[in-house]
Amino acid sequence: MKNRRSFLKKTAAGLALAGLFPFSKNASAGEIKLTDALIHHVFFWLKEPDNEAHKKQLLDALNKLLEIKTIKLSHIGLPAGTENRDVVDHSYSVSYMVMFDSQADQDAYQVDPIHLKFVEDNQHLWNKVIVYDSTD
Amino acid sequence: MKNRRSFLKKTAAGLALAGLFPFSKNASAGEIKLTDALIHHVFFWLKEPDNEAHKKQLLDALNKLLEIKTIKLSHIGLPAGTENRDVVDHSYSVSYMVMFDSQADQDAYQVDPIHLKFVEDNQHLWNKVIVYDSTD
Repeated sequence: MKNRRSFLKKTAAGLALAGLFPFSKNASAGEIKLTDALIHHVFFWLKEPDNEAHKKQLLDALNKLLEIKTIKLSHIGLPAGTENRDVVDHSYSVSYMVMFDSQADQDAYQVDPIHLKFVEDNQHLWNKVIVYDSTD
Repeated sequence: MKNRRSFLKKTAAGLALAGLFPFSKNASAGEIKLTDALIHHVFFWLKEPDNEAHKKQLLDALNKLLEIKTIKLSHIGLPAGTENRDVVDHSYSVSYMVMFDSQADQDAYQVDPIHLKFVEDNQHLWNKVIVYDSTD
């Protein structure tokens, strides 16, 4: 994160300008609650977590995955430096969050040739993956 | 998710109209990659997962949590009906995802009186929580 006007602030401003989201109590502060969405959040644990080449390969490959057309919103990240509380898991290597408009779009994503090739080319890099799919 | 033009589609359209996001390869399809953000994704396992009153209390309380001013984007959900693959964890009760502009904003959120009261009033409902904080 850089020390400039952030993308999230611009996102909220953009949505407000475009008048395209239902104003919540907190709309003045820029808060946007996403609905009618399916979040697909994947956490990867690399076999060699300190291998920067492996991490770079996975990050590059995940960025290419975003070419799949049914993805509407995404965020690719690393563990944040937040406080080490008992409930916080900072042990993973890479976080990959994508949002779809529907479960059907997520299902199509799973069998998209780009996704299948991603798994084939990169699965040797990790030894654990957890996926959480949530809908509202 | 309802069978109408979804909020995610409108979000993408709104951002495109406002010209506020850097166009990616996939901009024509509406894909938006969020950057300069901290995702705070929390999964709750209720002590009584089939107790609908408990689930409603937690969902209502999480919706109130969104009043905290540093939250920029949010999604509150339940496990999706996606395929039961080995890597997919559908066992949690509620998913709560909020995004901040910075780690400082997340840190402020943790000690906000609204958040502290949320924990005090509702922690008897769950027996497990996992938090993933990711930044780019």
